[in-house]
Amino acid sequence: MRAGEKIKTVRISIVGFGHVGSGVAEVVMRKHDEILRKHGLDLRIVGIADLKGAIIDEGGLSRDEIARFGADGALLDMSSLELIREIEHEVMVEATPTNVTNGEPGLTHIITALNSNRHVVTSNKGPLALEYRKLMELAERKGRELRFEATVGGAMPLISLIRENLAGNGITAIRGILNGTCNYILTRMTNENLPYEHVLREAQEIGIAESDPSKDVEGIDTAVKLVILANSVFGMDATYRDVRVQGITEITPDALKLARDAGYAIKLIGDVDIDGRLEVAPRLVPVSDPLNVGGTLNVATIRADLAGDITVIGKGAGPIEAASAILSDIIAIYS
Amino acid sequence: MRAGEKIKTVRISIVGFGHVGSGVAEVVMRKHDEILRKHGLDLRIVGIADLKGAIIDEGGLSRDEIARFGADGALLDMSSLELIREIEHEVMVEATPTNVTNGEPGLTHIITALNSNRHVVTSNKGPLALEYRKLMELAERKGRELRFEATVGGAMPLISLIRENLAGNGITAIRGILNGTCNYILTRMTNENLPYEHVLREAQEIGIAESDPSKDVEGIDTAVKLVILANSVFGMDATYRDVRVQGITEITPDALKLARDAGYAIKLIGDVDIDGRLEVAPRLVPVSDPLNVGGTLNVATIRADLAGDITVIGKGAGPIEAASAILSDIIAIYS
Repeated sequence: MRAGEKIKTVRISIVGFGHVGSGVAEVVMRKHDEILRKHGLDLRIVGIADLKGAIIDEGGLSRDEIARFGADGALLDMSSLELIREIEHEVMVEATPTNVTNGEPGLTHIITALNSNRHVVTSNKGPLALEYRKLMELAERKGRELRFEATVGGAMPLISLIRENLAGNGITAIRGILNGTCNYILTRMTNENLPYEHVLREAQEIGIAESDPSKDVEGIDTAVKLVILANSVFGMDATYRDVRVQGITEITPDALKLARDAGYAIKLIGDVDIDGRLEVAPRLVPVSDPLNVGGTLNVATIRADLAGDITVIGKGAGPIEAASAILSDIIAIYS
Repeated sequence: MRAGEKIKTVRISIVGFGHVGSGVAEVVMRKHDEILRKHGLDLRIVGIADLKGAIIDEGGLSRDEIARFGADGALLDMSSLELIREIEHEVMVEATPTNVTNGEPGLTHIITALNSNRHVVTSNKGPLALEYRKLMELAERKGRELRFEATVGGAMPLISLIRENLAGNGITAIRGILNGTCNYILTRMTNENLPYEHVLREAQEIGIAESDPSKDVEGIDTAVKLVILANSVFGMDATYRDVRVQGITEITPDALKLARDAGYAIKLIGDVDIDGRLEVAPRLVPVSDPLNVGGTLNVATIRADLAGDITVIGKGAGPIEAASAILSDIIAIYS
């Protein structure tokens, strides 16, 4: 914060209080004083809502009140939409689960918040994968920001990095590993020479894969993220149905071994380029390529006309990691 | 660019017209229309100066005028300092060669520009490695920006990435390969089992190493970049003399082979952390670590308290790559 700058109070609502929503509350509390000092922003959570109801405190909820909401549920019989519309605040954090069929309830939350003149920061991929252009046009019309760094790659900077750090560059292609679950499964299968089903079960046991793993292993999650990149970076008007998708369920330890003997890894790669290519499929990646990262890491290589190839690697999932991206987006609105 | 925003004319001077300075001129010309459309900035180069003299055109130099200056030398007997002080402009790009003994002539150029109320964007490491705090305080006092993304890692986003994309994160450490020449030499020695002297000569022949390679191979260049990170990210007040430095000149093909057999690469790593560690030395890096990149690439892993480890990889050198970073800095001043 520079001398002479005024402190600005930023009132925040959090809608959806699962892992990501509670991560945002935790991080906003933990970093309050540091952000006040460095950026001159006094971040206050004035309301939280989920399916059970809501809590509000127009002066800012305390850590205890938030913990009680997380443990015991709602104090108020107020819906998310009532909270968004009726409680005065500047930024609505939308953190309900992704739904790629119709984008709800996130889509209505975002539209309602923009119409109520709130900025929106979201980790919810569904609304952006289905209605990107409509949402951005609404934000523009209302003079509000809609930011969504957390939707792709978790804490790994990608969307803002392209927009800000590579400003002046034309981007011609982005390719990468955008799903940590698939990366974990393929890495384990390669290193331990184990079949797909075995590693999937193991991943489910330790919480890296969900009990219904189809969204991850069939490439749908990667496709949805690719669509968000296609629309936000390349100005397309795509939905996830436009993506050619192949998952990892057919990959055998033999195929991984053959690839490795020839100097390659097999990774589930999302590809989007300026010519409209939109593909998710298992690809051979040279072992020395920056895209060849292991475990649950995410990675993306951005092809830029001036900067050349820029690669970013980071943790693609995790509540604190997603909250990190959401927090950076909130700060960016006021920078 | 948003509807209703006004076009802003940004007059730029370029001081120092070697590879980087002429790269900036080339890139500003090539990207003029795109930047006008996307960011509402009408970038004009109104003056260029080097040791031979200067050219100026207050309405903006043409591509032909700039080419002629590059080929035939100056039209005007005007010094860099006169240009900085007397020609009206908003942004001075300082692109003279790095001098880590006393920072000149860049140091005086930057001070003069800030005192003349110009913003400064520079690729010159010397002034920042020697007088970081003094320069930032002057910029602050004058209400002007001093930006320097190009000084560390060329086109690889690092300084702005930490400041903007990781806003809200506390950074606890940065480690990486910040010198492409050393990375090239070690990569070739490893892959071809060749001695240091042989690969150095080869690198000199193809222009990757300079005829006097000491700044690169003795780790001085890496140390200077580390100091810029120490000061700008960790708020230290260090100079390059505070860095413990060991170069790569003693590394043998045998050592590289032993390391490889044990699953490691040897890389010249710069390390800076929140506890004041400032070291440049050859280090063992696991072959599967994101830091293990080959050729002339640069890489840095940023340890952030919320986001975890974020790694960026990119081209650390090259005139268009440096110009890319400078252009992003110019756009950022007006964003």
